[in-house]
Amino acid sequence: MSAELGQVRVVLINATHPGNIGAAARAMKNMGLSRLYLVEPLDFPSDTARWRAANAADLLDQAVVVNSLDEAIADCALVIGTSARDRKIPWPMLTPKSCASKVVVEMVHHPVALLFGREARGLRNEELQRCNYHVHIPTSEEYTSLNLAMAVQVIAYEIRQAYLAESGARSEDWDQEFATSQDVEYLIDHLERTLVDLDFHDPDNPRQLMTRLRRLFNRVRLDKMEVSILRGILTAVGRKIGL
Amino acid sequence: MSAELGQVRVVLINATHPGNIGAAARAMKNMGLSRLYLVEPLDFPSDTARWRAANAADLLDQAVVVNSLDEAIADCALVIGTSARDRKIPWPMLTPKSCASKVVVEMVHHPVALLFGREARGLRNEELQRCNYHVHIPTSEEYTSLNLAMAVQVIAYEIRQAYLAESGARSEDWDQEFATSQDVEYLIDHLERTLVDLDFHDPDNPRQLMTRLRRLFNRVRLDKMEVSILRGILTAVGRKIGL
Repeated sequence: MSAELGQVRVVLINATHPGNIGAAARAMKNMGLSRLYLVEPLDFPSDTARWRAANAADLLDQAVVVNSLDEAIADCALVIGTSARDRKIPWPMLTPKSCASKVVVEMVHHPVALLFGREARGLRNEELQRCNYHVHIPTSEEYTSLNLAMAVQVIAYEIRQAYLAESGARSEDWDQEFATSQDVEYLIDHLERTLVDLDFHDPDNPRQLMTRLRRLFNRVRLDKMEVSILRGILTAVGRKIGL
Repeated sequence: MSAELGQVRVVLINATHPGNIGAAARAMKNMGLSRLYLVEPLDFPSDTARWRAANAADLLDQAVVVNSLDEAIADCALVIGTSARDRKIPWPMLTPKSCASKVVVEMVHHPVALLFGREARGLRNEELQRCNYHVHIPTSEEYTSLNLAMAVQVIAYEIRQAYLAESGARSEDWDQEFATSQDVEYLIDHLERTLVDLDFHDPDNPRQLMTRLRRLFNRVRLDKMEVSILRGILTAVGRKIGL
């Protein structure tokens, strides 16, 4: 097992069918992934999951079961969510292949999370907005909804392809460590409080303001220095307006 | 549905679990394939297959059940069999991607068959020897055996990728027009003036502050709405601190 692929987390949110959890674990292990996170699964542990996992039952034993998405991704610096294409506010959208390239480059440096939503309805908007990118698996228009474990298989397959292709030369050096998901959340909280103090933002009539700002700061992949500069600016604003 | 993809047959030989037949049908329909051939399935038709097929039950209704591989592939001019890598007599071996390229080129002219073997033992030697090529899905050494329907999903996914690439690249949509270089320059000017007013930035001792902020706002590819939100925030700051 590659230590680097060990940085890649598959996060299943509110999975309903234990069979899908087991099948996802098998798909992961076939492709060399090992870290399964389950956010409030409906039925786990389960014999059905073990049966479908076959020789990947060890991934189920080691699965991390948590109560919130936050707990699953707090220390991740790259978060990618699977999504259907038609959202009102489009997010930077990756193909499975470009998603895999990013994952393989970044997993060397920090934990990476791939989010998969509920069988029936996918990820919620507030979950999608926690992501740096979305990834969409192209389908036929006649039947667009992949089974959950199948989606895990396709993404994991592309990650393995990219990993095999990479096997050596890596690029993308950045002078600063990337911010974690939690760093960015704190920044956005701080920003929102400041915008309220500035009478620029009315939480009772938010329109799309915070969504747009969240999209902006997630898609740029902030580094830690940038987060600290931006929070410094917000603190300076707070001081000047006397709060 | 593409008439050309309708030339592609998925042939499952002696499938044991009806759930896999249903899941394979769903994977096919998701990727725009429709022709399922079943050579002596153990248990078909089956409610389990229908349940796993979900909205692809029509593929099960139209599935062609035959008694021999010959009947399934007689009129096909290209036959590709899925295989583990270590066969005694090596056959021309394709990756899933090169397999898909061949399928997409050839399906225009004649029916093409993709053979998938039994859950436990795959294709037999005499079946593999009926193939023009073999295709192997790369796996981790720790767990090499993919679930049957997952293998169908990966191959079908690559065929769809090749099909989409063939029929022309598609562009990403964004809901807003991108900001021009000048929009971004004005924004950065505005930001710098505000940071001076906030006593956050000393132009005589700039260190790397503006360089870092410039890198941030250039790399994110701001759209016009975002520029206008950010400039609105800066204006609100200016108003509050009485400038």
